[in-house]
Amino acid sequence: MPNWLKKRADLSPNREALIFEGHTYTFLEVFEKASSYVGKIGTLGLGKGKTAAVLFSNQAESVFILYALQMAGIKAVILNNRLTSEELSWQLGDSDADVLVYESRFDDKVSSISSEVNFISTDKLKQLEDGDSVFLEEYDMDDVTTIMYTSGTTGNPKGVMQTYGNHWWSANASALNLGLHDYDKWLCTVPIFHISGYSILMRSQIYGMPVILHSTFEEKKVVEDIRKYQVTVMSVVSTMLSRVLVELGTRKLPDSFRCMLLGGGPAPLPLLESCIDKGIPVFQTYGMTETSSQFATLSPEYSIERLGSAGKALFPNLIRIVDSDGQDVPLGAEGEILVKGPNVTYGYLNRPDVTADKIRNKWLHTGDIGYLDSEGFLYVLDRRSDLIISGGENIYPAEIEGVLLSYPGVADAGVIGAPDEKWQQVPVAFIVKSDSGVSEEALLALCEEKLAKYKLPKKFYFVESLPRNAAKKLLRRKLREWLEAEGDGNGH
Amino acid sequence: MPNWLKKRADLSPNREALIFEGHTYTFLEVFEKASSYVGKIGTLGLGKGKTAAVLFSNQAESVFILYALQMAGIKAVILNNRLTSEELSWQLGDSDADVLVYESRFDDKVSSISSEVNFISTDKLKQLEDGDSVFLEEYDMDDVTTIMYTSGTTGNPKGVMQTYGNHWWSANASALNLGLHDYDKWLCTVPIFHISGYSILMRSQIYGMPVILHSTFEEKKVVEDIRKYQVTVMSVVSTMLSRVLVELGTRKLPDSFRCMLLGGGPAPLPLLESCIDKGIPVFQTYGMTETSSQFATLSPEYSIERLGSAGKALFPNLIRIVDSDGQDVPLGAEGEILVKGPNVTYGYLNRPDVTADKIRNKWLHTGDIGYLDSEGFLYVLDRRSDLIISGGENIYPAEIEGVLLSYPGVADAGVIGAPDEKWQQVPVAFIVKSDSGVSEEALLALCEEKLAKYKLPKKFYFVESLPRNAAKKLLRRKLREWLEAEGDGNGH
Repeated sequence: MPNWLKKRADLSPNREALIFEGHTYTFLEVFEKASSYVGKIGTLGLGKGKTAAVLFSNQAESVFILYALQMAGIKAVILNNRLTSEELSWQLGDSDADVLVYESRFDDKVSSISSEVNFISTDKLKQLEDGDSVFLEEYDMDDVTTIMYTSGTTGNPKGVMQTYGNHWWSANASALNLGLHDYDKWLCTVPIFHISGYSILMRSQIYGMPVILHSTFEEKKVVEDIRKYQVTVMSVVSTMLSRVLVELGTRKLPDSFRCMLLGGGPAPLPLLESCIDKGIPVFQTYGMTETSSQFATLSPEYSIERLGSAGKALFPNLIRIVDSDGQDVPLGAEGEILVKGPNVTYGYLNRPDVTADKIRNKWLHTGDIGYLDSEGFLYVLDRRSDLIISGGENIYPAEIEGVLLSYPGVADAGVIGAPDEKWQQVPVAFIVKSDSGVSEEALLALCEEKLAKYKLPKKFYFVESLPRNAAKKLLRRKLREWLEAEGDGNGH
Repeated sequence: MPNWLKKRADLSPNREALIFEGHTYTFLEVFEKASSYVGKIGTLGLGKGKTAAVLFSNQAESVFILYALQMAGIKAVILNNRLTSEELSWQLGDSDADVLVYESRFDDKVSSISSEVNFISTDKLKQLEDGDSVFLEEYDMDDVTTIMYTSGTTGNPKGVMQTYGNHWWSANASALNLGLHDYDKWLCTVPIFHISGYSILMRSQIYGMPVILHSTFEEKKVVEDIRKYQVTVMSVVSTMLSRVLVELGTRKLPDSFRCMLLGGGPAPLPLLESCIDKGIPVFQTYGMTETSSQFATLSPEYSIERLGSAGKALFPNLIRIVDSDGQDVPLGAEGEILVKGPNVTYGYLNRPDVTADKIRNKWLHTGDIGYLDSEGFLYVLDRRSDLIISGGENIYPAEIEGVLLSYPGVADAGVIGAPDEKWQQVPVAFIVKSDSGVSEEALLALCEEKLAKYKLPKKFYFVESLPRNAAKKLLRRKLREWLEAEGDGNGH
């Protein structure tokens, strides 16, 4: 398999590759920019087999550097820029990155990082001389090219290893599902540090398709640019889609817009109905970092009839639903969702135990609960480890609980997602005090120090004890009932 | 990777899959037909790992049986139905097929087959009861699914082994090149026993795209069906394209028609100009059985500017040009064309020696001569082993020479392609007699017995001696010069 960006620059040098803040880069230009960065990175002494962590926002330079790392065969640990210094320090230490490349806007965050990694800002990197630009002529599909951290039930985040092959197959499976037109343009307002955004960059190289990149999500600019550039596809989560609809008002999107790819959990009925009214084709998807993005997708013609479904596994993908003994359950019965396919990670960085536990016989045990209906459409009932999805960000309760439990005077802590109009969900905490002096303010201050802002509990409930089963496992379902009762009490 | 046809029937059961002689089959129907044949084949005692040879014309039932073999994991030796009984016997023996499934229309041919293989006609197969329909739930990309014979410099044909992965990658590379629209329909008038036709069936399953299948090429029906079914893509060789243009006369193809995929050698300028006049986008391609079809393609916008070029290698593919020492030559210089990619065969059936010779370090040595221009566009100058391409069929001179030399009284024989208006090329033979009694009629009779009709020399030239170099290698270039002189002499 040839070097993707080089091949693309050879096949369609003058085609538009990237549009950012009014500037358009062709594939040849992007290739030249990335090649130059390969040289600069070489000057740092980095090359094939090394690991570079990056702390980026959505910028054109971020794309060039990500492409440079991929071309050079340097594994990129792509950090979530919303994490705290403490969270970043942990991931840098765990990944044993050789260098951290960061945007100057994150200076403060980086200055507090406790890991012993070498730092270089993108400004400084840009000023370095180009060394030998040694890049791979061919990609080995089994080589790891990116590492993205996700959390889980048990405290510390795990680095998901994604190979060139994973990304390749993901892009191809997506094309077989959504089609591939030579006038396609994909609007990316989701973070490129998430697989949802990064996968758009991979599709761009492989399809020869322009990406319109926004540094943040702003619904006004979204609607403007969809019209201006005749965007055909966009990736969103429900909150974004709602905001686009509000912004549109009585207007419609241009006819050329053909796919709203909706991730991060099922969309509510009124939202889907509004989209149908406006002729916006919504493709609801199920995917995760471990599946290198889109894994199952529901075509728009089914969006009402199969409300709440994430559709069927893409062409190269397979889904099974198993019970707690690992036995397949009949259609319609609930169980754990298992996924298999060439876009599924082969494991977690430096975690052979977790890898062996979660991936058996090439089947990834997602921890998500769901079922297949009589015609094989997937319904996801509960995200793994009681995952909270807030504005498209994954939040793992166990991580927040760990922070809260570390506070002296907190005897027990339980976190769940509460429904939220703007963010779909926000975390809320239930606390059992052992010391009556513990205050909400003190807990919040601790969380602010330890956790990214979107993970901060929006409300603290102080209770006598938490519902736990005989094995002392927290029964989050009970907590959700308490929360509903609380809501009812407040007249919601 | 899931079973393609089953997955497709699951994802889009009601989409059109196959249109043949006015009858439309959905993917679910095709899957059910193929599943039924899996059962019938099971009744014959055949299953995964076995080998079945097939002697088919382009029929709906042929497609169902080919799909059944693929689903069952039975290797299909797909025979060219234009071969003689003797040629077929040889391939059946070489492939050691467990059974030959043939259409009754080939009864005569089959009755003269000398190989000890078991036969069953498709009529009889159809009447068998369905046994257990045991098909593969998943395909292993490295498993061989088809074997197609090609000849070469050295006498006997070789069975090219094509894996599930080869076909998968070929279909994906083609989609990345030509795009993939949900209204695409592919017209197949080329034989499904050739990779050009078989690859259309693979694309159909993988893309979820209807194939309009014709049993033979008839330009009138082609133009009719392109209009009737709103065909978007068609595979042709030059002769077919010329005939379509003549049939069209002053008419044009509908606007929905978006790709004329032209294989079998470069098209002459006047033909391309006529296509431009009529707004027919011609994609000239280079490919072979060993690359599981399309390998390099020239986009229509370059068809005049890069006249005679086959374009650039598709996204997953690489091309090198090397000299006789295997060293890369500079751009612009001639040499042997080497190809590499996931759609390239890993070898020839039961021929480890030939495989080792032709495939080194994953690079297939095509034997074709060509060069890359300064921008990397491929020009094919001479097909391997002085291949003659006649109406889309490959003819290897060595095979015809072998037959001629077997005749008592023939001292030497050389075959080359002569230009032909209708077929692009036809074989002609140069003969050195050792016995003056040898007649053209006798030689032709021998050829008719031994060789498929399209391989018969259209003319015999009796000469004193053949041009051979010091190593006694036949200088076919000299023969071509003789032929041109001959043509001039005849006032052409």
